[in-house]
Amino acid sequence: MEKHTYGVVGLGKMGLNLALQAAEKGYQIIGYDKYLPAQPETENLTLVNSLQELINKLDRPRKVFIYIPAGAAIDVVIGELTPLLEEGDIIIDGGNSYWGDSIRRAKELKADKGIHLIDCGTSGGVSGARNGACFMIGGDKEAVSQIEGLLKDLSVPNGYTHTGASGSGHFVKLVHNGIEFGMLQAIGEGMDLLAHYREELNISEILHTWNHGSVVRSWLIELMKKLYDEKQGFNVPSYVEDTGEVNWLVTDAMHMEVSIPVIAQSVMQLIASRDSENIAPKAIAMMRNGFGGHPFGTDEGIRYERHFGKVGGYEQPDSK
Amino acid sequence: MEKHTYGVVGLGKMGLNLALQAAEKGYQIIGYDKYLPAQPETENLTLVNSLQELINKLDRPRKVFIYIPAGAAIDVVIGELTPLLEEGDIIIDGGNSYWGDSIRRAKELKADKGIHLIDCGTSGGVSGARNGACFMIGGDKEAVSQIEGLLKDLSVPNGYTHTGASGSGHFVKLVHNGIEFGMLQAIGEGMDLLAHYREELNISEILHTWNHGSVVRSWLIELMKKLYDEKQGFNVPSYVEDTGEVNWLVTDAMHMEVSIPVIAQSVMQLIASRDSENIAPKAIAMMRNGFGGHPFGTDEGIRYERHFGKVGGYEQPDSK
Repeated sequence: MEKHTYGVVGLGKMGLNLALQAAEKGYQIIGYDKYLPAQPETENLTLVNSLQELINKLDRPRKVFIYIPAGAAIDVVIGELTPLLEEGDIIIDGGNSYWGDSIRRAKELKADKGIHLIDCGTSGGVSGARNGACFMIGGDKEAVSQIEGLLKDLSVPNGYTHTGASGSGHFVKLVHNGIEFGMLQAIGEGMDLLAHYREELNISEILHTWNHGSVVRSWLIELMKKLYDEKQGFNVPSYVEDTGEVNWLVTDAMHMEVSIPVIAQSVMQLIASRDSENIAPKAIAMMRNGFGGHPFGTDEGIRYERHFGKVGGYEQPDSK
Repeated sequence: MEKHTYGVVGLGKMGLNLALQAAEKGYQIIGYDKYLPAQPETENLTLVNSLQELINKLDRPRKVFIYIPAGAAIDVVIGELTPLLEEGDIIIDGGNSYWGDSIRRAKELKADKGIHLIDCGTSGGVSGARNGACFMIGGDKEAVSQIEGLLKDLSVPNGYTHTGASGSGHFVKLVHNGIEFGMLQAIGEGMDLLAHYREELNISEILHTWNHGSVVRSWLIELMKKLYDEKQGFNVPSYVEDTGEVNWLVTDAMHMEVSIPVIAQSVMQLIASRDSENIAPKAIAMMRNGFGGHPFGTDEGIRYERHFGKVGGYEQPDSK
């Protein structure tokens, strides 16, 4: 059976690795990236220099994946693609677009030119994109059925679900990312606790053991151990970057009146990590100095005596 | 090679299943439970009616596991066991005792009679106890080496670590449980979000897919899917019971001055789930009524209009 052609716009970490995986599996992939024109070609992966060239090389109905960061850029690329496409063609947005945007875009494309937009939440990170990802797909059954074969081939077995109408794929991916943030923060706090125990613990071995038979066993615990070993400890800056999509989920939760304190708190902790000159503690210290004469800055001696002695019948950590 | 005898005091969910697993693997297990005297015996598992009888049946040095809930009951059992034991005998506390208690008890037992106390954090739940658990062990190397073979046999491969001196096993297990609580709450919030989406989602299938290739793949996601299927949805009371040990971790974190907002919040959410007549919202509603004439109770009409319309360029959920 001849395998169809597929276009991929955006050859960053996710787009390129999915393209390479698909090419390896015998699909004919036409790739285009405005900012990365010098990617190496491989068998079955052809790189082109314009969207027009990409469209020209695709069988009809054309299937074009977009793997670029969420936001206005998606509207720009869709705006450039639309005049080149025809009724029945399919655009698949594989990034982390806001699900409300995906509903709006799908409606507009359908009404204007009869083009399908499928929202495709993609999880599994870079290694997943290269070796087997997890897909959450929203869109019309008719359109989805035309890319299902490819996506099932690029996912790990059972790592594919058609979640429902337009928007649902990106919504389910967004909820996934919210859970992910909560898990990341919980594991991060656990690492902080282990690092402050009274004796030095073998954190690498503990993580390894936790991943064998414990309740918290998970890919993230496995990943934490791998990175802890690679970095020989937590030797990276105390700063977390992110792509901002979980902020939307916090806003959604407020509109939906769903209480998500831990996911919201996890977002706040990321934000706080980027702000080493955080104003709130300055303001608190100023007021405490004002009403109680409490000193500015740290006072290790006082802190040690107050917090690390014996408390009640229990022995508390010696120091750190 | 003849396998040694081991005593197990407490034949509840964890103790009984570990005893059954050990018996199946050819260890001679002597079991005793004050409150569950009628457990069925199996090959290699002998039940007795008193601690004296249990001790009489053990080879020297005796090795006695305690699997009972944390707290004063542990001191009672240790107090009853101590006169029956001799120098070099080993008590293993397999429950979720506070690590500070384990340090205190180990010191006392060593000083008084030369008895070893090993703190053994046990994870993996009931199925883990029966089929392969995860152990985090604190205590003297000399004593630990005498039970290591058994515990490695009862764990899944690599599900065993000797974490360090007395207390460290229970501390590492406590941190594990803190991470577990954060993960549980994050997943719980994610379920709430999925259940409130504008169209009905197939939550069982989404969980199944997430466990194949996604970043959040984990035993807890697998478990959530299993229970969701068994209960045909979230058909249980909105009430979470727990055994209280993560409260200690929150207290520890404050003494150690380690910031764990998500783990602490997760504990607060458990506590809130038990309080359907929560005072805080009553007090807030009273003050809002007092200063702004805001009504008591719900007003679905107003809430719908305010929160579920279109906001900005994004489409928000229709209803729910």
